[in-house]
Amino acid sequence: MNTQLDLLVVGSVALDTIETQAAARADVLGGSASYFSAAGSFLTAVGLVAVVGEDFPDEHAQFLHRLGVNTSGLEKQDGKTFRWHGRYSDDFNKRTSLDTQLNVFAGFSPMLSPAQTEARLLFLGNIDPVLQLRVLDQMKRVQLVGLDTMNFWINGSKEALLAVLRRVDFLLLNDEEARLLSGRHNLVAAAQAIQRLGPKSVIVKRGDAGALLFHEEHVFAAPAMPLVDVVDPTGAGDSFAGGFMGYLSRIWKGGTLDGMIVRRAMICGSTMASFCCEDFSLDRFRNLTHGLIDSRFRAFRQLTHFEELSL
Amino acid sequence: MNTQLDLLVVGSVALDTIETQAAARADVLGGSASYFSAAGSFLTAVGLVAVVGEDFPDEHAQFLHRLGVNTSGLEKQDGKTFRWHGRYSDDFNKRTSLDTQLNVFAGFSPMLSPAQTEARLLFLGNIDPVLQLRVLDQMKRVQLVGLDTMNFWINGSKEALLAVLRRVDFLLLNDEEARLLSGRHNLVAAAQAIQRLGPKSVIVKRGDAGALLFHEEHVFAAPAMPLVDVVDPTGAGDSFAGGFMGYLSRIWKGGTLDGMIVRRAMICGSTMASFCCEDFSLDRFRNLTHGLIDSRFRAFRQLTHFEELSL
Repeated sequence: MNTQLDLLVVGSVALDTIETQAAARADVLGGSASYFSAAGSFLTAVGLVAVVGEDFPDEHAQFLHRLGVNTSGLEKQDGKTFRWHGRYSDDFNKRTSLDTQLNVFAGFSPMLSPAQTEARLLFLGNIDPVLQLRVLDQMKRVQLVGLDTMNFWINGSKEALLAVLRRVDFLLLNDEEARLLSGRHNLVAAAQAIQRLGPKSVIVKRGDAGALLFHEEHVFAAPAMPLVDVVDPTGAGDSFAGGFMGYLSRIWKGGTLDGMIVRRAMICGSTMASFCCEDFSLDRFRNLTHGLIDSRFRAFRQLTHFEELSL
Repeated sequence: MNTQLDLLVVGSVALDTIETQAAARADVLGGSASYFSAAGSFLTAVGLVAVVGEDFPDEHAQFLHRLGVNTSGLEKQDGKTFRWHGRYSDDFNKRTSLDTQLNVFAGFSPMLSPAQTEARLLFLGNIDPVLQLRVLDQMKRVQLVGLDTMNFWINGSKEALLAVLRRVDFLLLNDEEARLLSGRHNLVAAAQAIQRLGPKSVIVKRGDAGALLFHEEHVFAAPAMPLVDVVDPTGAGDSFAGGFMGYLSRIWKGGTLDGMIVRRAMICGSTMASFCCEDFSLDRFRNLTHGLIDSRFRAFRQLTHFEELSL
């Protein structure tokens, strides 16, 4: 078990402290690679590459392993694990970072194992684009590459970021980042400008307003599932990415990438993101089943379906 | 021509001065009843009830009349027309009201003609709920009623507003207003609480994030069309309402209101709202055709369609 991998993610594994209006949790499992790989584990053979400190509880690694995540790339180093402390506003639309300690993550320099370099799909989580390039250079036969980034790298490492962008298929970012990267206010214009930088597809994540896919010439709008109980939206974007890339890994076996598969991958991403928000940390993935996922797929169909109309 | 009406709207007709980052327009046609009836005119026999001053240019009334709007309820009074002056931020997400002069609209007290009281569908635009009630009381055989409101009435005329709510089928409002009216942050909880106040359906308008329909037990998400050139979003909500109620007037001939018809009405509303944003004032409606509307319907289908998926 857990030895094969079709989808590899490189990113962070963290210990988060999270405060919402309703409750708080200290030192829970977090980080982009954790959320991504947990979500992806329901769809495909996923492995992660990340670094933690000596203080990282074994139970967290065991939890990911039990989900089926290949955790052989989870390196333990001397020092402390990346820690983040955040607080959400009433309606979850504002998040304040109260404390960020990079710790061992500051010196992260991912070296892939031979098995990892053979992965068919790769997701480069939100890390220094110089490191993202170094990971890409190690890949032997990768067919689809997804990328996440953030304002910090757009502002501070633009050149390296542009070099990665030329080599990726999918860029996932939020609307503010899309505007910053492109210098365009209008989201359509921003996405089109970014597509000209390299990515075939740009996915603009908009929180509870859903996500927009700009794939070649087409646009697809995936709504967010309206949830009556949002508990903790931390990691929703990474869970989206895990569901999205996980679905592609599961369904796409090479050749032309049909637009309809990418649309379904968007719905799968939205599904995993919606589950993520229903509990703190990665807790919603603990008892998640294929049956529940299928049932949420149907709920998304219900949410968006209408018959054709004409005058 | 223009004598019959199936759908009646009561609201404002205004002269707007609008500033965007790209351009500005002074004293153009505006107001909720103008946008609503212009959008609705492409779908059904619509009439408006509103008041203007002696300064109201004839060409504006003639424009609405040429669209097919029954303008017999456009009363001209001594005094000046309602004027609004607003400015939009770069990305159109913020609007600042620079000046509002109610003028003759301050004394608006709609009295319906016999023909108007026979309308089958009624939309009560954003006016004092006391007046909305007075209009409702004049209706003889109305079958579907839609309502718009705003923070000002939710805060200041709650009791009258609750009385109207008990008598309407559809409430259209934005997310902030839904939260204020219900006292709930979560939009699903807010919409459900509002449904318990009377309306069978609550439509939460979210600007470029689209609109959510809470109809009986079901939720439907209609995206906004991603537009590469937003010129002026003024009146988009009212155009949505005109497209929504106009479609119901066109398609629904009585009996049980099927949920699928309401979903299609949402897409028709989103279509008319998207056209509205493409030019200043009501200018996009000047050369709009059924062919263009049908083609935007298809674009909405393209934007949202995905095949069923399962694991």
